[in-house]
Amino acid sequence: MRKGELESAGNSKMSSEICLKSLESCLEKYIPGNELKEVKRILYGRSDDNAIEVPEETMAIAAKHGFEVRAFSIPAQKEQLRTPRIVRVAAIQNSICLETTARLEAQRQAIYDKITNIIKAAAAAKANIVCMQEAWTMPFAFCTREKFPWCEFAEDAKHGPTTKLIQTLAAQYNMVIISPILERDSEHSDIIWNTAVVISNRGNYLGKHRKNHIPRVGDFNESTYYYEGNTGHPIFETEFGKIAINICYGRHHPQNWMMFGLNGAEIVFNPSATVGALSEPLWGVEARNAAIANSYFTVAINRVGTESFPNEFTSGDGKKAHQDFGPFYGSSYIAAPNGVRTPGLSRDQDGLLIAEIDLNLCRQVKDFWGFPMTQRLPLYAESFAKVCDLNFKPQIIREGDNN
Amino acid sequence: MRKGELESAGNSKMSSEICLKSLESCLEKYIPGNELKEVKRILYGRSDDNAIEVPEETMAIAAKHGFEVRAFSIPAQKEQLRTPRIVRVAAIQNSICLETTARLEAQRQAIYDKITNIIKAAAAAKANIVCMQEAWTMPFAFCTREKFPWCEFAEDAKHGPTTKLIQTLAAQYNMVIISPILERDSEHSDIIWNTAVVISNRGNYLGKHRKNHIPRVGDFNESTYYYEGNTGHPIFETEFGKIAINICYGRHHPQNWMMFGLNGAEIVFNPSATVGALSEPLWGVEARNAAIANSYFTVAINRVGTESFPNEFTSGDGKKAHQDFGPFYGSSYIAAPNGVRTPGLSRDQDGLLIAEIDLNLCRQVKDFWGFPMTQRLPLYAESFAKVCDLNFKPQIIREGDNN
Repeated sequence: MRKGELESAGNSKMSSEICLKSLESCLEKYIPGNELKEVKRILYGRSDDNAIEVPEETMAIAAKHGFEVRAFSIPAQKEQLRTPRIVRVAAIQNSICLETTARLEAQRQAIYDKITNIIKAAAAAKANIVCMQEAWTMPFAFCTREKFPWCEFAEDAKHGPTTKLIQTLAAQYNMVIISPILERDSEHSDIIWNTAVVISNRGNYLGKHRKNHIPRVGDFNESTYYYEGNTGHPIFETEFGKIAINICYGRHHPQNWMMFGLNGAEIVFNPSATVGALSEPLWGVEARNAAIANSYFTVAINRVGTESFPNEFTSGDGKKAHQDFGPFYGSSYIAAPNGVRTPGLSRDQDGLLIAEIDLNLCRQVKDFWGFPMTQRLPLYAESFAKVCDLNFKPQIIREGDNN
Repeated sequence: MRKGELESAGNSKMSSEICLKSLESCLEKYIPGNELKEVKRILYGRSDDNAIEVPEETMAIAAKHGFEVRAFSIPAQKEQLRTPRIVRVAAIQNSICLETTARLEAQRQAIYDKITNIIKAAAAAKANIVCMQEAWTMPFAFCTREKFPWCEFAEDAKHGPTTKLIQTLAAQYNMVIISPILERDSEHSDIIWNTAVVISNRGNYLGKHRKNHIPRVGDFNESTYYYEGNTGHPIFETEFGKIAINICYGRHHPQNWMMFGLNGAEIVFNPSATVGALSEPLWGVEARNAAIANSYFTVAINRVGTESFPNEFTSGDGKKAHQDFGPFYGSSYIAAPNGVRTPGLSRDQDGLLIAEIDLNLCRQVKDFWGFPMTQRLPLYAESFAKVCDLNFKPQIIREGDNN
């Protein structure tokens, strides 16, 4: 077996050459109509993507600034006693703008400008809630294990410059905005956290959530920078539904997704930063499984582009030191509680993904499938507690035990 | 929105016409070589299926009895201090043989004969562990809500006729066999359970596990017949690895998969019975997500064919009464902890799926991704316990809470 194959569930060649614009574009190119419908039904939960029209103003901004826009609807059954709760949810994926050697203010300002334009396009498309990718104000420099200058990007969640910018945009466009940043908690020993800030559509600071599960895998040496979050599993009750944020690596932990559901989330955003050789085959599985298992919508967001750093770093994988981790593969998508998902954005281009969803679908799917009713939570609360005991003995049956 | 669309994440036309033999056969038919490799890498975790040779004797039995055989390998990295732990795992998917109106002994004997042949073929291919589909000795009659005659199929887990047959085959072929049956617990008030019996490769009764989560969805009114299982999450320590069984609907519950992992499972079988309009788009997601999240192998097994019953029944979906629930879609597959999965068996034909796996991959993936280390179990034990409290107040942040 080749070295490096373990991590793959992808394969290493990928990192240097992206030959598919997106998985869906390839399926659509080759598979004829009727069979394509069946392929989509099995892979995406419906034979028709339900694309919806994007306003000209949005398309004009996208054309000017060179990003992709895709929009789809995920409807629910009409009810008699509840009106539909239609919400437009948006995800933004993007590359950084300047070299990582540029001055930090310049790097950040260039990203601010790019995102401001995409948010403007989202507003023109009547998006109600928009979420950016993880640590969106900066290159994903945690691969380097260098504290300087990258930790300078960290800022106060409530009063930092990014929050101020986002508050302005949120109020201007009547939009809830989720802004995942690197947080500096100046009031508590200057600790750094990986945090998502939530701004209401009135421009108010609603609150923040800190990343619950921190990776130490390959290039993602994030435990060097921040600790496991101490904010629990908060739900933010907004005018457009109850939302939560499961940051990046937390998507690998089903119990994390589950707690957001138990607290009542209707949409869980998963702002991420992840690369092809590491996780691409898992990408379509995890956030979608979470949507199904917890009867809520999930929004999986990954960045694009290749970020190169001035100093070499290693991945702890026996390979040579290098200056980038290969391209982030984008492919942001939105999944629904009934298993339907949208096509992904491209694997290599800035993009804005919009889904018009009916939040009534969450409770409808709960009633239909009955997962919350059948989940036997007391059994698992007790079982997990037993496993935590240092003297825990696993439930193992051996030959002869039952003879 | 059309009635019935809720359940779909599939669509209802499907039930009457299967136009794809399998998803993979369609991809292979149309997508050219290099792009197919990328599609497979993204969808299945590797660009090459790693098909392995099937012995002539196996193929001869398969040809004679009309079932498909597919075999693949999923290797692990070579280690210095552990030898590889290569195991051949097999899954059997099949239709019933006689009309559901035939006499019960005849129905069961015909299935016994079919499965005996497929097990013989598996033995010739050197399978070490084989698992049949859920309630394999009978039609999946639970849709009818009739107790008679279907409950007659229930039998004692340790001393029933099916266990006796399987014990003989297991000893004869040196094979661990998992036999999911309808259990009658004659020693305890004649209660019926949905149970998997595990027979060791010496032909000994190792033990049993009862289905933990019971559906009440659409045609699957199983709570009419049996209760949530009381056997916990046992791991069976066999000569070929530590195995567990997550029966059917339990695959929708990540916490259920997780407990098998926490007890040390290396392979978790998911014998199922499910139909296209209900769950096909979820099928490739759930057992695979479980393999990834818990760093073990999963084996997802579904039956094939359409089973028609003498008396009409309803699905509780506003549609007309009917006598069958449309075809079971087969598509059995095996998923690995690194996200790799095999192609599926066909959607409409009896089949035997074999994977030669190296169990060392489980611990390698745990070391690589670090999911067990980062799972914060005490947090979730405590959180789940809080949610179980009748006065539990979800963690909700509202506008103004943080101003």
